[in-house]
Amino acid sequence: MDLPAHGSNPARLYEKMNMEKPTQLIDFSVNVNPFGPPPAISKQWGSWLSVVSDYPDPAGKSVVRLLAGQNGVNESQVILGNGAAEIIQFLGQLWRGQQVVIVQPAFSEYETACRAYDCEIDFVFAEENGTLPVGDILIKAQEAAAIFICTPNNPSGVAFSEKEIMQLLDELQLTGCYVVIDEAFYDFAGSFTFASVLHKYPQLIVLRSLTKMYAIAGLRIGYLLASDAIAKQVARFRPHWNVNALALKAAEVVLADSSFADWTRQNIIEERKRMFEFLKQEGFHFTRSVVNFYLLRDPELEDQQPLFIFLLERGFVLRHTYNYPGLSGKWLRAAVKTKEENNKLKEALQQWKKQS
Amino acid sequence: MDLPAHGSNPARLYEKMNMEKPTQLIDFSVNVNPFGPPPAISKQWGSWLSVVSDYPDPAGKSVVRLLAGQNGVNESQVILGNGAAEIIQFLGQLWRGQQVVIVQPAFSEYETACRAYDCEIDFVFAEENGTLPVGDILIKAQEAAAIFICTPNNPSGVAFSEKEIMQLLDELQLTGCYVVIDEAFYDFAGSFTFASVLHKYPQLIVLRSLTKMYAIAGLRIGYLLASDAIAKQVARFRPHWNVNALALKAAEVVLADSSFADWTRQNIIEERKRMFEFLKQEGFHFTRSVVNFYLLRDPELEDQQPLFIFLLERGFVLRHTYNYPGLSGKWLRAAVKTKEENNKLKEALQQWKKQS
Repeated sequence: MDLPAHGSNPARLYEKMNMEKPTQLIDFSVNVNPFGPPPAISKQWGSWLSVVSDYPDPAGKSVVRLLAGQNGVNESQVILGNGAAEIIQFLGQLWRGQQVVIVQPAFSEYETACRAYDCEIDFVFAEENGTLPVGDILIKAQEAAAIFICTPNNPSGVAFSEKEIMQLLDELQLTGCYVVIDEAFYDFAGSFTFASVLHKYPQLIVLRSLTKMYAIAGLRIGYLLASDAIAKQVARFRPHWNVNALALKAAEVVLADSSFADWTRQNIIEERKRMFEFLKQEGFHFTRSVVNFYLLRDPELEDQQPLFIFLLERGFVLRHTYNYPGLSGKWLRAAVKTKEENNKLKEALQQWKKQS
Repeated sequence: MDLPAHGSNPARLYEKMNMEKPTQLIDFSVNVNPFGPPPAISKQWGSWLSVVSDYPDPAGKSVVRLLAGQNGVNESQVILGNGAAEIIQFLGQLWRGQQVVIVQPAFSEYETACRAYDCEIDFVFAEENGTLPVGDILIKAQEAAAIFICTPNNPSGVAFSEKEIMQLLDELQLTGCYVVIDEAFYDFAGSFTFASVLHKYPQLIVLRSLTKMYAIAGLRIGYLLASDAIAKQVARFRPHWNVNALALKAAEVVLADSSFADWTRQNIIEERKRMFEFLKQEGFHFTRSVVNFYLLRDPELEDQQPLFIFLLERGFVLRHTYNYPGLSGKWLRAAVKTKEENNKLKEALQQWKKQS
C-alpha cells in the first residue's frame, strides 16, 4: 500500500485506501495538543496581521533569547528551524554520505532526510516496552557519524530510560559519534530533558518542536540545542528568513506562559489513564505512553488492517504503522484527544470487539 | 563596516552604524509592494486562525495547481519554497562543490547559498545601464554547472535584454550549463517572463517570489519553475511541510485575482516617473528601473556614505550597496513607495543638495 508517510492528512489517506471519506471524522492520526492553540494566540491574532508585510527577523532574536534562558544555554547554542523537519534536513546535510544509526521505531523524517543526502543508514530496534538495545547501539555506533533517538518515542509514546541514554552518551564520547535526542514531545511528559546535560556532552544534539504542545503545526517552528561548534556548522544550511513572522510571534507568546502546558499535561494524563483502563478491560494491547499518543493493537490480529479499515469507515482516522520499521502494521497509533472524542473512539472500539 | 546583508532591518542597521534610531522613520530599504498586502488578505485574516493547528498540505497542491495553470507548465514542474531564499539554498545543494557564475550586481543570497555548499564562485559584471557581458558569460560558463541571472535586476531594477538572454540560453544548451533566471520582481514590470520558454530550454530554471508583489514577506513563499528532471532533483532537498499554512492560504487568495497586481503596477509606474523627473532635475544619477526600486547616487561622491548617513539621521533608511560586488557603496538603493513617502524623500534629497 502506498499510504501517506505521515498522519494528519485524512483526505489523502481515504483517497489512497480507495475509500469514501465520511462527512464526519475525527483525526486521531494527528498528534498535536487537542486543547490548543493556547487562548493567547487567538486573542492576539488580529494584531498579527501587521507583521505579514515585513521580513521576519532572520535571527529570530526574541525567541532565541527566551529559549536560551529557559534551557540554560547560550543564545549561540540555539538554532531555529522552519519546524523540526527542517532541522532534521540540516542534520542530514551535516552527515552527508556518512553512516548514521536510527533507533527504530522512530519519526520517519530522520531516514528520509538522511537518504536525501546519501547517508548509509543502519537501524537498531527498541523493544515495545521501551528497552533500548544499548549493546547493539554501541557496536553499530563505532563506525557511525551519528545516532538518532526519539524520546519520548514517536510513535510508541514510551520514554526510554534516562540512565541507559546517559550510559550511551558516556560511552559514545570516546568514539565521537553525535547523539541526536529528539524531544519533540518532552513537554507532554513534563519529565527530565537532556538539554540539562548539554554542557557535559559536546556531541549531544537536542531537537525540539513548538508545534505539538502549542498546536501550531500550521505555523512551523522547531529548534535545536547543541554545542556552539555544532550550532555553527548547522547554521550554514539555514536559508535566510527561514522562520516566518507569525511563527516568531506565536513562539514569543507561548514561551512566556507555562500555565497552558501545565494544564494540558494534567488533562492528557487523566484522559490517557481513562483510555488505558478501557483498553485493558477490552483486551487491547497498548504501549505505556507518557505523552499524548500511544500504540494500540488487537492481539487477535497480526496485521491491524481490518481494525484500521473498520475505524476509517466510521470516521475514526488512526495512524497506520506500515512505514515504521519494526512495527510494519502490527500496531495503530492513536492520539489522546478531548474526553468527548476519546469516548467516541471507545464506543467504536467496543463495536469492533462485539462484531469480531 | 559590518552592515546587515539585506534591507528591511532598520533597527540593526542603526545599531551597526552606531547611530541613534529616530522615532519616526521610513524604510526605503525594503522592496515589497508599498500598497500591499491586498485587501483580500486582511478580509480573510480572522478565518485563517483555524489553519494554525493542523499541518499544512506538504505538497501545497492548491497553490501548485494555480501556479502550473497560470504559467502553462505541468504541476510536476513547480516546487514551492519557504520563500525564494529556501529555493536558492536548494540550488546551492544541487551544484555543491561545482563551479557557478553569478552575474553581478545581484541578490546576495546566490553567493551565500553557493558558498555554504563549497561551490567555486565566479562573477561577471553587467553594466549599470543593463548591458549583459554576453561574451564574458559564455567563456566562464564553459566550465560552470550553472549561472545566476537576476532580471529585472535586484538591486538596479533594470531588465536585461530578452534577446541577449535568449542568445545565452541557445549557446549554453550545448555546454549543459544550467541558467537560473530570478524573476522575483517580474510582476512589477509586467513584461515578458522566461517561464514561456521553459519547454524549449531544459536547463532553464525560473525563480519567483510571491512575497514582493503581495507584500507577504513575513509569511514566506516562493517557487521554482523548471523541467520535470530538475524539479525532481530539487524536491529531494525540501523539508516536509516547508510552506506554512498561512502562506498557502495567502497564495491561494492573491493568485486568484490579478487586479491588485495590475493596479500596483500602474501606481508604481507613475510614482517612479515622478521620482526620476525629480532626480534628473536635481542632478542625481539613477538606474532606468522597470520595477519598484532603483539605484541612485550623487555624482559628486564616489562612496555614497555621507548621503546615506545624512538620510539615516533624518529617518530615511535606504539600502547600502557595500555588499554588492561591482557597486561597493557607489550607489544607494531606494524603494518606490507611496506618493506621500516619496515626496518626503524628495524633500530630504533637496535638503542634501542645498547643504552640499
